[in-house]
Amino acid sequence: MSVLGLSINLATVRMQYTLAQAVDACLAQGITAIAPWRDQIEATGLKEAAAIIGSNNMRVTGLCRGGMFPAPDKAGLAAAIEDNNRAIDEAVAINAECLVLVVGGLPKGSRNLPAAREMVADGIATILAYARENHMPLAIEPLHPMYAADRACINTLEQTLDICELLGDGIGVAIDVYHVWWDPKLYAQIARAGAGRRILAHHICDWLLPTRDLLLDRGMMGDGVIDLKSIRAAIEAAGYQGPQEVEIFSSENWWKRPGEEVLGTCVERFLSRCQLEQPVTGE
Amino acid sequence: MSVLGLSINLATVRMQYTLAQAVDACLAQGITAIAPWRDQIEATGLKEAAAIIGSNNMRVTGLCRGGMFPAPDKAGLAAAIEDNNRAIDEAVAINAECLVLVVGGLPKGSRNLPAAREMVADGIATILAYARENHMPLAIEPLHPMYAADRACINTLEQTLDICELLGDGIGVAIDVYHVWWDPKLYAQIARAGAGRRILAHHICDWLLPTRDLLLDRGMMGDGVIDLKSIRAAIEAAGYQGPQEVEIFSSENWWKRPGEEVLGTCVERFLSRCQLEQPVTGE
Repeated sequence: MSVLGLSINLATVRMQYTLAQAVDACLAQGITAIAPWRDQIEATGLKEAAAIIGSNNMRVTGLCRGGMFPAPDKAGLAAAIEDNNRAIDEAVAINAECLVLVVGGLPKGSRNLPAAREMVADGIATILAYARENHMPLAIEPLHPMYAADRACINTLEQTLDICELLGDGIGVAIDVYHVWWDPKLYAQIARAGAGRRILAHHICDWLLPTRDLLLDRGMMGDGVIDLKSIRAAIEAAGYQGPQEVEIFSSENWWKRPGEEVLGTCVERFLSRCQLEQPVTGE
Repeated sequence: MSVLGLSINLATVRMQYTLAQAVDACLAQGITAIAPWRDQIEATGLKEAAAIIGSNNMRVTGLCRGGMFPAPDKAGLAAAIEDNNRAIDEAVAINAECLVLVVGGLPKGSRNLPAAREMVADGIATILAYARENHMPLAIEPLHPMYAADRACINTLEQTLDICELLGDGIGVAIDVYHVWWDPKLYAQIARAGAGRRILAHHICDWLLPTRDLLLDRGMMGDGVIDLKSIRAAIEAAGYQGPQEVEIFSSENWWKRPGEEVLGTCVERFLSRCQLEQPVTGE
């Protein structure tokens, strides 16, 4: 029996499994979709990774990640573009449905956030041509404002969609509830994203109270305060019916548990806390 | 010699000083404006606190804090209103220029952020009449989105101004750089706030890289990534010429240092990192 509508971002079990082991462990629990990270692909080898994914008929809801555009000089900017083009190649090789972009923050030593945001927009515009040639959708992931300096200076869905609309086709958004749940404009911007057919991925986890670490203390769905079903309902009403992808960074809890327990809990919580009882038809 | 344009939020030296000690320590360094917290006023006694402030001719740039409106039941909501009215009385007694509102997050057990936001808007509307009668401006402080669940569900300047414009006169915003520096709409919303004469306070500190704690790891101005002078220039261009108020929660650094060193550093960094060389005239 397969668990329809659930994907596992392999960061969730990165301490427990190699790519091959993760695929086996997912299939053992009926999970047929994954989203790997580039370091996991690299550790396995791209050709082997593609073979593992293909032979097991795994759906790949995204490759994490491209992005990280801002740099202190032209050589750094050019290196970022080159690296993003390689990420597009890898996403194509594993038949990913999108390449997720975590766009990067301030260049070292800079306090100029508007300039960093320009570098990001320029960088995305540059790689978009290559992405289109290769039919690989780019999914900008707006990150929580607490990462504006060091990880991503695109921090709201509104800001993301403004960029998408400037750039045209072939680009959209990965909506991760952890990053956007707090936004007073969330529901309006989900509707806008759907109207523009920009929703390319939907990531889930939970916001814990208290949150003990800015990066590595994400919660399992149901253990925190995010209204997961309401957000999912809005996303489905906006026309996106794709999988919900569990992405949990948890150095002190889930990364220390057996992978089988983690995946089993993902399935249980997905079914009880995230999946809608009734499909939203939008009628 | 007094340091014009600098105020010290007394949270910055809460571990070192009582109110009376803090006033003496500030005056010793030429600082003639403060913003106390209610627990500091209470520890001293309201009458005595007002006498200390008055006899030393201290400017009070704000009282921290009212707010914390959302509650799980009507009794809780009513208690919050009552407590806010007492905060207004205290702000009047110490001649504060505004009462800062940290509006509160989700009621315990709730995941309904839109409902919490309605409770906040209703609560503010309720106390606003009493605040107006007492000529005490209310300054909503939008808090960083990482506090949406547990401290304040008003998280952007735009959201704050939307509420202010619904409510009319007697209410505005405390712009704390720590909470808003990341916002892609920051400069547009500062201009909007100024146009509506809504800027009631300007708090400063810095965002450290890395930030080791969500609440208690704020940095001294200049030690982080916030572009303090650009934000100040925008605030002055928007028509606000009031003091910059240093508010630093720092359990592992500044709260452990001698108060004199902390205040001396505040003065030095204010002069070198925050004050504009040239007043912005807006011409």
